[in-house]
Amino acid sequence: MSVLPKSVENVITQFSRLPGVGPKSAARMTYHYLRSPNKDASKLANALIDMDENICFCSKCYNVSDKEVCDLCSNLLRKNSKLCIVEEPLDVVAFENSAIYDGVYFVLGGVISPAEGIGAEDLRFKQLKERADELLEELEDKKLEVIVATNPSLEGEATASYIHDIFEKNIKEGTMIVSRLAMGLPTGADLEYADRLTLKRALEGRRSI
Amino acid sequence: MSVLPKSVENVITQFSRLPGVGPKSAARMTYHYLRSPNKDASKLANALIDMDENICFCSKCYNVSDKEVCDLCSNLLRKNSKLCIVEEPLDVVAFENSAIYDGVYFVLGGVISPAEGIGAEDLRFKQLKERADELLEELEDKKLEVIVATNPSLEGEATASYIHDIFEKNIKEGTMIVSRLAMGLPTGADLEYADRLTLKRALEGRRSI
Repeated sequence: MSVLPKSVENVITQFSRLPGVGPKSAARMTYHYLRSPNKDASKLANALIDMDENICFCSKCYNVSDKEVCDLCSNLLRKNSKLCIVEEPLDVVAFENSAIYDGVYFVLGGVISPAEGIGAEDLRFKQLKERADELLEELEDKKLEVIVATNPSLEGEATASYIHDIFEKNIKEGTMIVSRLAMGLPTGADLEYADRLTLKRALEGRRSI
Repeated sequence: MSVLPKSVENVITQFSRLPGVGPKSAARMTYHYLRSPNKDASKLANALIDMDENICFCSKCYNVSDKEVCDLCSNLLRKNSKLCIVEEPLDVVAFENSAIYDGVYFVLGGVISPAEGIGAEDLRFKQLKERADELLEELEDKKLEVIVATNPSLEGEATASYIHDIFEKNIKEGTMIVSRLAMGLPTGADLEYADRLTLKRALEGRRSI
């Protein structure tokens, strides 16, 4: 006999499947709803159902969207001469919140990770190639800058090389420049605590002042 | 213009209302559902709705239950001569998982906490008195042991004294014994790192060996 009613156990199970949520936090989250007087559980439930029904992927950048073409891709003020490739939709949010980029995006949907069984065929490389070709088509000067903004992890690096290889022909033709986000010390970091690879990258990427 | 579609923002907002979930984790949790192919979002939504509809409080112990009287209160093997008072349903789970207690429970619904604006009138003291009287009625020898198992916090202590006061008449009459969980060093703890109050309590509660 379980101590908890089945329907409570179910919610705990569902919560504990979320990233970073252990069984204890899942139980706390569930009990929060049992305690809360103002139907918060059904608010979350309805929000989830609404999201499930209304969200699709933008047909151009594959970011999550509630339209066939997302607000960023349909925004005529964004420069279509720059294509920033990111892993996840949250990376787009990070860029947009920083207001430092005026081009368009492409969301790969992850990185190549043999350890997690994610191969190139699981990611949107085919769609990326198509999107890049489409942008090139639109550009008068036929020059597209591709900025690879995958995470500075082993997998992110491997994926960046893979992207480089995909566009090799374009790079040689001179129709594309493929760059990678700079690596080095983050603002406010303490040199003393920087890891070896970060220091190495910071040294390699040193700039004259 | 927000970067994220409204329905995604809604789910993030709902998640970030959960205890211990900040805006970043809420976003991660939401994106987990956007990525997951097997309709996990609707599984959580349905589990929440199901819980919302089927869960009530046991009319005897006020633990969460899917029946009017919960499995623990209706279990004839549990001794009704012992009443363990806890703050939250999860505390019942902790006791039951340890399989160290064979009496019945009463869930207060929190502790008196002036800082959080929770007064005695917000907790189930009236129902506790009624339940204790009901148990006394059932007992042939008219002797009930009340074990106060509120947390070892300032608020838990204050609530324990309050409970003691409620039952003062019964204690004087000799129909009730009110005890409090022992405080001291937890198993596996390091004396060196124990805080002053824990050490003080451990010393006060020392037992001959």
